[in-house]
Amino acid sequence: MSVPLKHFKKGSEKPLLPDDGVLRIYSMRFCPYAQRAHLVLNAKKLPHHKIFIDLKEKPEWYTEYSPLGKVPALQLTAVDGQPALVESLVIAEYLDEQYPEPPLFAKDPLRKAQDKILIERFGAAGSAVYPVFFTNNPPEDALKNLENVLDIFEQEITKRGTPYFGGQQIGIVDYMIWPWFERLGALKHLLPDKYDLNQTRYPNLVKWRDLVAQDEAVKQYALDGEVHANFMRLQREGKPNFDLAFETS
Amino acid sequence: MSVPLKHFKKGSEKPLLPDDGVLRIYSMRFCPYAQRAHLVLNAKKLPHHKIFIDLKEKPEWYTEYSPLGKVPALQLTAVDGQPALVESLVIAEYLDEQYPEPPLFAKDPLRKAQDKILIERFGAAGSAVYPVFFTNNPPEDALKNLENVLDIFEQEITKRGTPYFGGQQIGIVDYMIWPWFERLGALKHLLPDKYDLNQTRYPNLVKWRDLVAQDEAVKQYALDGEVHANFMRLQREGKPNFDLAFETS
Repeated sequence: MSVPLKHFKKGSEKPLLPDDGVLRIYSMRFCPYAQRAHLVLNAKKLPHHKIFIDLKEKPEWYTEYSPLGKVPALQLTAVDGQPALVESLVIAEYLDEQYPEPPLFAKDPLRKAQDKILIERFGAAGSAVYPVFFTNNPPEDALKNLENVLDIFEQEITKRGTPYFGGQQIGIVDYMIWPWFERLGALKHLLPDKYDLNQTRYPNLVKWRDLVAQDEAVKQYALDGEVHANFMRLQREGKPNFDLAFETS
Repeated sequence: MSVPLKHFKKGSEKPLLPDDGVLRIYSMRFCPYAQRAHLVLNAKKLPHHKIFIDLKEKPEWYTEYSPLGKVPALQLTAVDGQPALVESLVIAEYLDEQYPEPPLFAKDPLRKAQDKILIERFGAAGSAVYPVFFTNNPPEDALKNLENVLDIFEQEITKRGTPYFGGQQIGIVDYMIWPWFERLGALKHLLPDKYDLNQTRYPNLVKWRDLVAQDEAVKQYALDGEVHANFMRLQREGKPNFDLAFETS
């Protein structure tokens, strides 16, 4: 009994899974928030079943796990009642508390709070770049707004003076913001000027990006910029193909 | 050197405060998110200076503490560099970790995660009721949408079977959602039908509300429904009077 590698749609039956107490992650292959949860599961080498959800035509049964129908959701099948958790950062913190190795969140309350604020601030980068990814005519200042947020992260990693935001080891900020950096790799396929991060403006952030790309947890769930670009093109036409990643892999 | 009881405006000088290592909370008297931080400070009996910010005409110096100009911000003047934290839930968790008594967040990682998800879900109640508070012609289904979210909280407190969401003692969910319940008290002054929570539909939630209203930390920062209603009326006219709470107290 393993889960078929496809996105479950409206009308589909629930996948039959063994009662094995293994974590279950409900996801969409191209969702950056779901990717956050995958990265934490991978970093902690936690076995898990992946159940992919078609976000355009959601299976009726999905609200049992995620009342608002959002991904990711993490179901704890070893716990009484098999509850499911939602919200990527909540899932990440739960996993870090329940499975402490390797530690991802800072132990110091102040640094931990500052890291969460940093992750929250990155939200503006995601909002800025979203229409560049998914619409044909994004606002003119979209990339400028993205870059203004990236300036904060260049300053921050420079100030921290460590290879990762997490320090000498990769940590929660690195994993939580990574999915958007992976997707920036789509822009050299999508935009006429083959957009890439400017090494002069973001010297340390570019080094960071290239380092994080080599992390095992990241590599296990990575998609090439071209695959992201193809998904974005289809999404723009209103014909998202969630299974695209499986076809090309 | 104490801080004047008023909201600091554009053009104002920074308040002069003693270098006493006491926490500083930047706030707006009617902001529900800022109120969350006040409740945690009060619950933990932490001395703090209050600096109120005029959110319509913000003082130029405020971005030093809150880069996006939002309240609340909590400045840690006893820490090197006197950093400031933002985001009400991040501030709450920082305070709970740094000052453990009385504990507000659950110790169990799963319950803690579920509590955070519950707090996040309450956001939809805030969004639903916001136009009822602050606009003259709110969407027709606004109160219905609010009540649908409140159903979840009635079910949840009933399921938990305890007086507070936190258990036998008041906890983080109670404090984080309280500010909106306090403001619901404005509706009997604002709406023609003197809206109040329906005791038949929300028996346990009404009991909870009346109990939380008696909590010392809550009482210390409480405003009467009529004061909230007056603030809302002025805000609707585009003439918010942030200092209203000080005038009437």
